[in-house]
Amino acid sequence: MSISHPPAIILVDPQMGENIGASARAMLNCGLSDLRIVRPRDGWPNERADAMSAGALAMIPPVTVFNHVEDAVADCQHVYATTARPRGMAKPVMTAREAAADIRARENTYQKTAILFGGERAGMTNDDIALAHTIITIPVNPDFSSLNLGQCVLLCAYEWLQAAPAAAKEETHTPAPHKMFDEFFRRLESELDTHGFFRTPEMKPTVSRNLRAPLSRAELSEQEIS
Amino acid sequence: MSISHPPAIILVDPQMGENIGASARAMLNCGLSDLRIVRPRDGWPNERADAMSAGALAMIPPVTVFNHVEDAVADCQHVYATTARPRGMAKPVMTAREAAADIRARENTYQKTAILFGGERAGMTNDDIALAHTIITIPVNPDFSSLNLGQCVLLCAYEWLQAAPAAAKEETHTPAPHKMFDEFFRRLESELDTHGFFRTPEMKPTVSRNLRAPLSRAELSEQEIS
Repeated sequence: MSISHPPAIILVDPQMGENIGASARAMLNCGLSDLRIVRPRDGWPNERADAMSAGALAMIPPVTVFNHVEDAVADCQHVYATTARPRGMAKPVMTAREAAADIRARENTYQKTAILFGGERAGMTNDDIALAHTIITIPVNPDFSSLNLGQCVLLCAYEWLQAAPAAAKEETHTPAPHKMFDEFFRRLESELDTHGFFRTPEMKPTVSRNLRAPLSRAELSEQEIS
Repeated sequence: MSISHPPAIILVDPQMGENIGASARAMLNCGLSDLRIVRPRDGWPNERADAMSAGALAMIPPVTVFNHVEDAVADCQHVYATTARPRGMAKPVMTAREAAADIRARENTYQKTAILFGGERAGMTNDDIALAHTIITIPVNPDFSSLNLGQCVLLCAYEWLQAAPAAAKEETHTPAPHKMFDEFFRRLESELDTHGFFRTPEMKPTVSRNLRAPLSRAELSEQEIS
């Protein structure tokens, strides 16, 4: 039976262990766990990466390390490359959000995908980018666009998570049924009446209405009404 | 004349200067510049914040510092508070994306908004949250949900930027007009013909079609055709 694969995150020529750790943390924050590294400057494993991952590196499957991008993407049907700006290559360019929808669609047909991220100093070479099918750009302020590696990974992973099928989302506050609110409000009204809150019978309808509107707007839950 | 105001970012009881700096950087990455701080543990200004902001703190207006959240939100019509989980308060709960759309709608009616972020250790007190009209939760992996302060600010600011009116987005790759592609392809075909590429006249239509399809799909730009 085929199963659907979340995307692999591939860091190409990463330099600082801290950024690898931050990337692992951001991935697991968003439910991703397939981390691959090509030519990490300081070798692997890396203590600084472990510390910065806040436990994520111990919770995900072992990171795989490669000498060539070709090998890191060997099992992938579709490869995305993040770049600060499109380099005039004849490849489709997507925002991180568009790419997330595209990745989800490919998961539905059991394709394995990967997203490439260049290192801190120089990004990726054109030869590495040529291995990708699609370019991802993250739209940010053009006058201050430097995102660090961990932030780029976070935004791409976050968009992937947000593109999840709607069924996965949970309800956080369920308003009470109308009938229950209505009974509650009648009781409140009658209590207020008993204690002379409405002053005169003429004022009652207006004051009552002014009381009901904001309470109704608050969409009280069953628990709050009880 | 009324002008529209982007949201203020308000850090409540932040501890590490690094996280304040990372927040400023993330804000400017996304085009935000109104940063306010309530009770920064290590005072203000803060050298570690400056270093971590990658220049952002020098480019935005001076950060304002307050002793009370009430004062920090005094000029705001609508206040959002980010919390790790909704605390059963009778307030609307929105995802960061829903809140971004809500903030944009309020900007259109010239409302000033603010987003509150709690400190690293304890988040915000219920009294501080009570000052907010709306709760923001950032949907992440429930089994590994710890986002640091700078990442929370980044995701909220990023969602705000992505919710910008579509007109602000720029075109990255413009395919050439059809006529230009057609002329290019006819010339290519005739060159190939001259050099005997098609072997036999019978094969020419099929080979030519197989050549045209992928080139057409690539949506060559005028520059690439030239």
